[in-house]
Amino acid sequence: MPFFENSYPSRLLEDAVDAIGSLPGVGRRSALRLALHLLSQPAENVHHFTEAVNRLRDEARYCPECRMICDGEERCAICADRSRDHRTICVVESVRDVMSIEATGQYHGVYHVLGGIISPLAGVGPSDLTIEALTERVRSLEDPESAEVILALSGDVEGETTAFYIYRQIGRTGVRVSTLARGLGFGDGLEYADQLTLGRSIVNRQIFKP
Amino acid sequence: MPFFENSYPSRLLEDAVDAIGSLPGVGRRSALRLALHLLSQPAENVHHFTEAVNRLRDEARYCPECRMICDGEERCAICADRSRDHRTICVVESVRDVMSIEATGQYHGVYHVLGGIISPLAGVGPSDLTIEALTERVRSLEDPESAEVILALSGDVEGETTAFYIYRQIGRTGVRVSTLARGLGFGDGLEYADQLTLGRSIVNRQIFKP
Repeated sequence: MPFFENSYPSRLLEDAVDAIGSLPGVGRRSALRLALHLLSQPAENVHHFTEAVNRLRDEARYCPECRMICDGEERCAICADRSRDHRTICVVESVRDVMSIEATGQYHGVYHVLGGIISPLAGVGPSDLTIEALTERVRSLEDPESAEVILALSGDVEGETTAFYIYRQIGRTGVRVSTLARGLGFGDGLEYADQLTLGRSIVNRQIFKP
Repeated sequence: MPFFENSYPSRLLEDAVDAIGSLPGVGRRSALRLALHLLSQPAENVHHFTEAVNRLRDEARYCPECRMICDGEERCAICADRSRDHRTICVVESVRDVMSIEATGQYHGVYHVLGGIISPLAGVGPSDLTIEALTERVRSLEDPESAEVILALSGDVEGETTAFYIYRQIGRTGVRVSTLARGLGFGDGLEYADQLTLGRSIVNRQIFKP
């Protein structure tokens, strides 16, 4: 009979493996590997690691305008940048999406971070997101007809549900509402595209601009 | 031009991603995903996580006999177990190996954890491991000729170097030194075995016991 029987030689090790294994995408084996790695490191490295995680959780603030993570109490660097177009608001699920769009260098407006997506299965409703703040923000725009809200959400059911819900909240203000272009990726061949994407890219075909 | 330019909207986020990304096998993308996950959790969960990691590093002790991780100052549960064979010592690289062997339920001796493997490339020499303690332990055995040391190390160059080094240290005590059986895995077909394993499993063939 195994000596530890699904257990660990040390309670401390087991607690650490439990904690690390609770992270998404980290299994028990990886958690054990990471715990033993941390155990083998100098104590100051481990303390630096845990302090960085604690500080992120305890001290990170959200921009009062776009709800993106930022360090100070003030508006984030993008909202504070007067050279950006503050009448174009790109609505995204998370901070990561802001970073992805910024990395393209193609967008010069501002953002609104929802902090999630409407998902009845995961128990996330509209009130768990920053949709009300977005609605307020759009309503307070001067001359909304000449402003634009880009719904840059994922193309799955949750993303479409969220987009539809937001549209119902802000559509009556008269603001222009747009979504991301969808179709074949640039450089993609037809044979690798799924039927839905290929079909929609024919229906939504665009004028050829040589 | 991207706004953040290879950077992050928040210094705290960047520090946490750096810290998480320093773990082995965790890339920048995964680190960002994990950091944003931790940010979205209740503060008490995050503190529980970091405390478990800190406590593992600060409070875990090593068994004075076999150098396995254990919680108290005393000997570990295996070394303290008088029903086990204390004259058979299985030498392994890490705590994980002890757990793997215990899980088989086939071994009833005690262990000696080296805490690593001799690897000149990684800058790990014999003095970084618990080889001297092992030598002392073997020397203090009564009647070493009837005792056994099993070198349960990996089959790569580092493992063989370490096994050879240990053999030179303890061989003159007269203790019996053995290594793990190597060959085709149980249930494996011949066509999937590598040439070296297949060749050695022919050379080291064993009497058929039906």
